[in-house]
Amino acid sequence: MRLSRYFMPILKENPKEAEIVSHRLMLRAGMIRQQSQGIYSWLPLGKRILNKVNNIIREEQNRAGAIELLMPTLQSAELWQESGRYDAYGKEMLRIQDRQERPMLYGPTNEEMVTDIFRSYVKSYKDLPLNLYHIQLKFRDEIRPRFGTMRSREFMMKDAYSFDLTLEGAVHSYNKMFAAYLRTFNRLGLRAIPMRADTGPIGGNLSHEFIILADTGESEVFCHKDFVNFDIPAEDTNFDDVAGMKAVFDKWTSVYAATSEMHDEAAFNAIPDGERLSARGIEVGHIFYFGTKYSEPMGAKVQGPDGKEHAVHMGSYGIGPTRLVPAIIEASHDENGIIWPASVAPFDAVVINMKAGDQACDAACETIYAALSKAGKDVLLDDTDDRAGTKFATADLIGVPVQIIAGPRSVANGEVEVKDRKTGARETMTIEAAINRLAG
Amino acid sequence: MRLSRYFMPILKENPKEAEIVSHRLMLRAGMIRQQSQGIYSWLPLGKRILNKVNNIIREEQNRAGAIELLMPTLQSAELWQESGRYDAYGKEMLRIQDRQERPMLYGPTNEEMVTDIFRSYVKSYKDLPLNLYHIQLKFRDEIRPRFGTMRSREFMMKDAYSFDLTLEGAVHSYNKMFAAYLRTFNRLGLRAIPMRADTGPIGGNLSHEFIILADTGESEVFCHKDFVNFDIPAEDTNFDDVAGMKAVFDKWTSVYAATSEMHDEAAFNAIPDGERLSARGIEVGHIFYFGTKYSEPMGAKVQGPDGKEHAVHMGSYGIGPTRLVPAIIEASHDENGIIWPASVAPFDAVVINMKAGDQACDAACETIYAALSKAGKDVLLDDTDDRAGTKFATADLIGVPVQIIAGPRSVANGEVEVKDRKTGARETMTIEAAINRLAG
Repeated sequence: MRLSRYFMPILKENPKEAEIVSHRLMLRAGMIRQQSQGIYSWLPLGKRILNKVNNIIREEQNRAGAIELLMPTLQSAELWQESGRYDAYGKEMLRIQDRQERPMLYGPTNEEMVTDIFRSYVKSYKDLPLNLYHIQLKFRDEIRPRFGTMRSREFMMKDAYSFDLTLEGAVHSYNKMFAAYLRTFNRLGLRAIPMRADTGPIGGNLSHEFIILADTGESEVFCHKDFVNFDIPAEDTNFDDVAGMKAVFDKWTSVYAATSEMHDEAAFNAIPDGERLSARGIEVGHIFYFGTKYSEPMGAKVQGPDGKEHAVHMGSYGIGPTRLVPAIIEASHDENGIIWPASVAPFDAVVINMKAGDQACDAACETIYAALSKAGKDVLLDDTDDRAGTKFATADLIGVPVQIIAGPRSVANGEVEVKDRKTGARETMTIEAAINRLAG
Repeated sequence: MRLSRYFMPILKENPKEAEIVSHRLMLRAGMIRQQSQGIYSWLPLGKRILNKVNNIIREEQNRAGAIELLMPTLQSAELWQESGRYDAYGKEMLRIQDRQERPMLYGPTNEEMVTDIFRSYVKSYKDLPLNLYHIQLKFRDEIRPRFGTMRSREFMMKDAYSFDLTLEGAVHSYNKMFAAYLRTFNRLGLRAIPMRADTGPIGGNLSHEFIILADTGESEVFCHKDFVNFDIPAEDTNFDDVAGMKAVFDKWTSVYAATSEMHDEAAFNAIPDGERLSARGIEVGHIFYFGTKYSEPMGAKVQGPDGKEHAVHMGSYGIGPTRLVPAIIEASHDENGIIWPASVAPFDAVVINMKAGDQACDAACETIYAALSKAGKDVLLDDTDDRAGTKFATADLIGVPVQIIAGPRSVANGEVEVKDRKTGARETMTIEAAINRLAG
């Protein structure tokens, strides 16, 4: 992408409304724009990152055997009356009347709808287990949306729903999503810690939040510091291995970790001095097992091997991509801007033409841009006529992992500078070497 | 994907509510499910196809220089009051009040919002031309939604918006989208005919609908039959070539074509006998040039080279992916089911194990499935214990281009049958030959 033809509106001033660093940097880098209170557009740079985050989530859901569909944003009130949540949900639910005056709502979550889909088609235990997910917009009419897309009203969520005949099956489904989440957050460059959590309005009796530690976190969390060294399930993990999945779950729940709602002061104090970690955290995922809470009232039953009807055991598993993006920034930035993990970077590299219009600089940049694009890399070419200082500041701000800097002096020697955004290390090398370094 | 682990709820009976063939086939193939009147879930098979359609649309938008972002579904009423459309839009607009009693709406289109984004950041003609698009859900509260996702209330739309300093620039932007649309529909296996159209509530003075011919089309259309042979712009088309783009536009508008709203009986009758085509059509895209209709009242102005402020010339360009899927089916099916063009097929091939549980059949199918998956193909393996007849009917119904049929007799000879869904032609060949045919 040539920056001269791109739409990346960088703000020079710090926006006053931003209370936390991710909100400030997302606005400054031209990633998002508030359209109404708690409702955002994702501008092109932000959309690129969101796509990469979604793709990683999708790959890991698929790997764990979940199947993607797409449920609509608007739901009929009837469904929620069946489950009993229509009146219980409160003012966070955006209630709508259509032109026929039918009561509708903008889905804040999809347990009811997916249960309705399930009961319409699945009649036998032979079709289980089943895990259906979608990545879709949700709306929760928070009284005080804030922190940019960290807590917005219209937001994106990946929500998966598992269906099993038995409690044991449901626990295995839960463990699979538990392992998939560990892999997902790890690939996003985050160390997330699963913590026993309150089930809230979803209900049920088993629930974990996945929390990353950050000073700006909304919740207080308490855990053993051993978590930092636990292994992440490998790419070739067999998600059908019941014992293997249980082992992952057992390991990651073997030491103390809890949000403030579930905190047990005595248990925490039993941890030896120097191994206790008390910090602030950001919730980036939440998984629930809630048994037959929805299947029973909504009649989602299958025939079991015994010939009888059984309400299915269900769980739900949420990750908010539009929340993950700022969470990654909270965990990875410096005073100059964002530092994207390579897996979600909007571009693999930025080629900075320090003197656009200079024939040698232009030629060097075009050579590098063409070679890397051909190698399948996403490259941003800063071909604008901004001053070099502005270009450096922009490249640092938007956090692309590698900067390739072509100035008249180095180009005269057939060389460019390659800068690592994270470490700040700069290395001078031939144009060819720079291409080989990046294209590899 | 193993069918035994997939969620593809095939209906055996013809659903009564379906009035047109695409709606019937989408329900029968388990692609969609109605959740409320005119509001659908896309089940896994449908979601796969929708993804492929969206990817082609996205590639062609990017090729033509449009830049992707993501605007939210909910908009504030204020924006629409600025443009004057809030009161004018009528009951099709779904109006919503949030908990603070602020008037909102579910966006039926995005001219206002994108104009607001533009005016917030772009101040100089040097940043033009600009074309921003998103693929996002919309809602239009139609009084009589019907034909499944062909005319639903919640639907997906790719809508692009161009911004230019001058009329000439805007016409070039229009021509680029015109050419991109020809390429897009062609890659989707459709021959779409651009027709002068009424601009309707979007406004403006230049507009084309892209129409495919189908007996079930909602609108009557009239055109010269020469369209069938016109060339589609090539993949390496230079979209910056002003004359080249104009030549594409001129060629494709050189002979008569009009929807009934714009029909000129005399001009049509001037076409020689035997070259007139009068048929029913389905609108699959609609493009508009509307000048300063929104930029003027909303103050979207840039400084020109003359130092003065100019309201920008705008156009908008829509394609409805959730409408395109049934349109493709209307254009491509037979009495046994859907016939997907390869570019949007949910799977490249289906491997039919005629006797699941038979060791030789299982082994042959697993070999083929593994080899094709490794070659990067999307393969569906029918490993269920359904009868062979049911498996054949399902494979035909869901319209995967190639079926690889492994029965005990042919497998005993190291062979399988390869069936072309479209022609029905069957060929017996070795397992290796079948793999090579498909993996190539």
